[in-house]
Amino acid sequence: MEKQVLGRLEWRINVPDGTSKVLVPECSYYCKTLLALKGLVGGLVARVLRFLDKAWALGVSEPKKVIHGIKVGIALSLVSLFYYMRPLYDGVGGNAMWAVMTVVVVFEYTVGATLYKSINRVTGTFLAGSLGIGVHWVASQSGEKLEPIILGISVFLLASAATFSRFIPSVKARFDYGAMIFILTFSLVSVSGYRVDELFGMAQQRLSTIAIGTSLCFLISMCISPIWAGDELHRLIHRNMEKLAESLEGCVANYFKDNQSGHPSEEDNSYKTQEYKCVLNSKATEESMANFARWEPAHGPFNFWHPWKEYLKIGALLRNCACCIETLSGCLNSEKQGTEHLKGYLRDASMAVCSHSCNVLRELSMSVKTTTYSSEFHSSVGEMNSALQELQNSLKSLPTQLILQQPLAVESNENKSTTKKECAPPVMGVIPLATLVSLLTEIVARIEEIVDGVVKLAELAEFKASNEEIIAQNQSTNNNRSSDSPGCEAEP
Amino acid sequence: MEKQVLGRLEWRINVPDGTSKVLVPECSYYCKTLLALKGLVGGLVARVLRFLDKAWALGVSEPKKVIHGIKVGIALSLVSLFYYMRPLYDGVGGNAMWAVMTVVVVFEYTVGATLYKSINRVTGTFLAGSLGIGVHWVASQSGEKLEPIILGISVFLLASAATFSRFIPSVKARFDYGAMIFILTFSLVSVSGYRVDELFGMAQQRLSTIAIGTSLCFLISMCISPIWAGDELHRLIHRNMEKLAESLEGCVANYFKDNQSGHPSEEDNSYKTQEYKCVLNSKATEESMANFARWEPAHGPFNFWHPWKEYLKIGALLRNCACCIETLSGCLNSEKQGTEHLKGYLRDASMAVCSHSCNVLRELSMSVKTTTYSSEFHSSVGEMNSALQELQNSLKSLPTQLILQQPLAVESNENKSTTKKECAPPVMGVIPLATLVSLLTEIVARIEEIVDGVVKLAELAEFKASNEEIIAQNQSTNNNRSSDSPGCEAEP
Repeated sequence: MEKQVLGRLEWRINVPDGTSKVLVPECSYYCKTLLALKGLVGGLVARVLRFLDKAWALGVSEPKKVIHGIKVGIALSLVSLFYYMRPLYDGVGGNAMWAVMTVVVVFEYTVGATLYKSINRVTGTFLAGSLGIGVHWVASQSGEKLEPIILGISVFLLASAATFSRFIPSVKARFDYGAMIFILTFSLVSVSGYRVDELFGMAQQRLSTIAIGTSLCFLISMCISPIWAGDELHRLIHRNMEKLAESLEGCVANYFKDNQSGHPSEEDNSYKTQEYKCVLNSKATEESMANFARWEPAHGPFNFWHPWKEYLKIGALLRNCACCIETLSGCLNSEKQGTEHLKGYLRDASMAVCSHSCNVLRELSMSVKTTTYSSEFHSSVGEMNSALQELQNSLKSLPTQLILQQPLAVESNENKSTTKKECAPPVMGVIPLATLVSLLTEIVARIEEIVDGVVKLAELAEFKASNEEIIAQNQSTNNNRSSDSPGCEAEP
Repeated sequence: MEKQVLGRLEWRINVPDGTSKVLVPECSYYCKTLLALKGLVGGLVARVLRFLDKAWALGVSEPKKVIHGIKVGIALSLVSLFYYMRPLYDGVGGNAMWAVMTVVVVFEYTVGATLYKSINRVTGTFLAGSLGIGVHWVASQSGEKLEPIILGISVFLLASAATFSRFIPSVKARFDYGAMIFILTFSLVSVSGYRVDELFGMAQQRLSTIAIGTSLCFLISMCISPIWAGDELHRLIHRNMEKLAESLEGCVANYFKDNQSGHPSEEDNSYKTQEYKCVLNSKATEESMANFARWEPAHGPFNFWHPWKEYLKIGALLRNCACCIETLSGCLNSEKQGTEHLKGYLRDASMAVCSHSCNVLRELSMSVKTTTYSSEFHSSVGEMNSALQELQNSLKSLPTQLILQQPLAVESNENKSTTKKECAPPVMGVIPLATLVSLLTEIVARIEEIVDGVVKLAELAEFKASNEEIIAQNQSTNNNRSSDSPGCEAEP
């Protein structure tokens, strides 16, 4: 039945007993709920899609991480064979669980981290297991009443001490994970020894399954496309040098370009100019990589005693330099009032210093990258220094220039004040340039420190001489000019 | 028997069967071994003593870390009651192991970190357990031959995917530990399900023991002298502000003091001057603290939705400023050739800028420390800006001064060149001062950014008005001077 009430459409059901029911348009509520649900699901799906998209992008940009995932999968599948194959399972039984656990916990991204965790785990388990069995024996000799008390007190004392020891820097750097495993194993052994009878057998089996797990991790992480912490640190350091060179170049070029032709290339340069920020933030990564690298066996150009600590020192020097570039970029961005003709006067000299500095940085980067040592450093450093000297000289000779040029610039608008201004150069215009010069001086000084750091690394790590160097050496021996010292061409 | 052979003392024994034995002076070897052993033991003891000494010093300087160790000891002793007390042990049996393990692994230094790990562990275990049981059911339905294959493939796929997901930044920040626990539990459940019959019961018991362990950790870490990650972050930020103020002050004071009275206080100042280095290196700590702080319930002045992200932003601004101070200190240390009278001319103005900047930093620090907001900021910022303006003005008026003073300084040694020099101020002498001024300008600009950051934090975290503010507000309402806007005294 359909009725038009007050111009509104209404559905009414007349039931046989005389009453009538109005059909409320439930559809609208239903529709609303449906819409809300749709929105929710849609939002969730969009979020999941965004997440997957991000994951995909990460996988494409860093396929090593995908490979790591697959390696963990392989290791776990292999270790679960202990459950699926009867003979293996009969050997270790329920303790196979510890092998699985070990693989999950110990398998890390880099070989060094995996080794660090494996060695810590095995050592920690072994030490704590022996100590736990010893304490258990002492406790079991001292009567039923005293046993839980002795066990409880020993757990309390050792756990507290070991936990505190994890805060001591030398322990934290090398044995943090081992200390945790020590606490875990000691508590488990001494506490479960109270209920388990065959404690010694259990401890032995557990240790052997852990050993199986760790050796599986070793094998897989070293044999299937290994990711060495040392390599990563090495790459990080020489890339950071390149990044510094790029941002220094971009920063100075931007300053001198801007006022010449508006702001043409600021956007496409800003990405490169900001690269020093990565350098500033790389301390934590460098330290953890260096920590892991020292556990790694010889690989590629690195032997077991490779001086990883030197990388940390170079890293600190790079951050120092990045700090200076950061300030330079800040100062240049905020002080654009440098008078144009002054700027023009120093442009070439500044650009020369900048390009020579970048040159030195790039040569250093190349030297670290190829682990070769070329004495060409020194001539490049010399060029950088003489360029700096020239820049300082041109700033020194600036006042005369200023006085020569100032009147020309001022004459046109204020003809009367020229005579007075001749002896009063606009210092405010010189300030940005003076800042630029002294910051460049500081940057050059810091680059020289980096050079020293790399030279020391080259000595300690016995970098091989570069090809040109070898040719030059051969020539000098052939020509019997043994009086020259070929190792160092010295600064000009 | 004693015999003198070739001037050498020799002991010989004549044995009854006619042969004779030379007594080699064994004592010397013995003594050597003894000495070597002594040295070894002594070295070891010295090393251990040094280590203990370090540990003691750490414990004295940071008693919180000792307390944390004791807390872990208490938690472990409590959880081991599950083994010692018959009724408790009957309840959970061998699965009590999981409670012990949970306590060891989950109990972290700060409440936030403990909560993060606990929640991740419980959620990860629950999700992976349910999924594992599901996969196990599917596998068990598909025949004996297919079962291990299905289980193996599912472990491989899920472990690979979960391991890879740990590299995605959003997962890494919040669910890194959860993902690891997910892999662990899923592998254990699906793999051991192949051999264990009462899988569901086992999973349930394991989950309940883990819940017991985590709740024990919650209780102890929150009730016994809790260490909140939020508090630590808060303290880190306001201390860093003070450190910046101290190093800025020390750095500028050193520059102006040095040449006045030799190097009197460089050593006792150098410690304070270097404090900006802590600020530069605090990024990693800040980020992890902020990550943990968001898991923490309301405590002290912080509610659950406290804007911890703002702290990270302020931290970044502080590092920015520290970078600038680093460069300033480097430049001032390397360029001490600033002519004395020029330096003297700018001393007061520079010191004023410096002290006003430090003032602003200290006020900011106090404001963050007490979570109060005082509009006096703005007047201090205004003072800082006007001091900077004055410094720039005095640098602007420098040339005239220079020309007035230069002859006096030069006349004494080179009387002839005076006329020429009058128009050519020694720009090289001005450079360090110009650098100082523009770096101070940059520092002031960055401090203003910090002020903005703190004001935004004060707004979002609803800092209460400071006492003076309240008094002032009350007075203004009492005097019915409602036309003034009391919220902001505005910059002069």
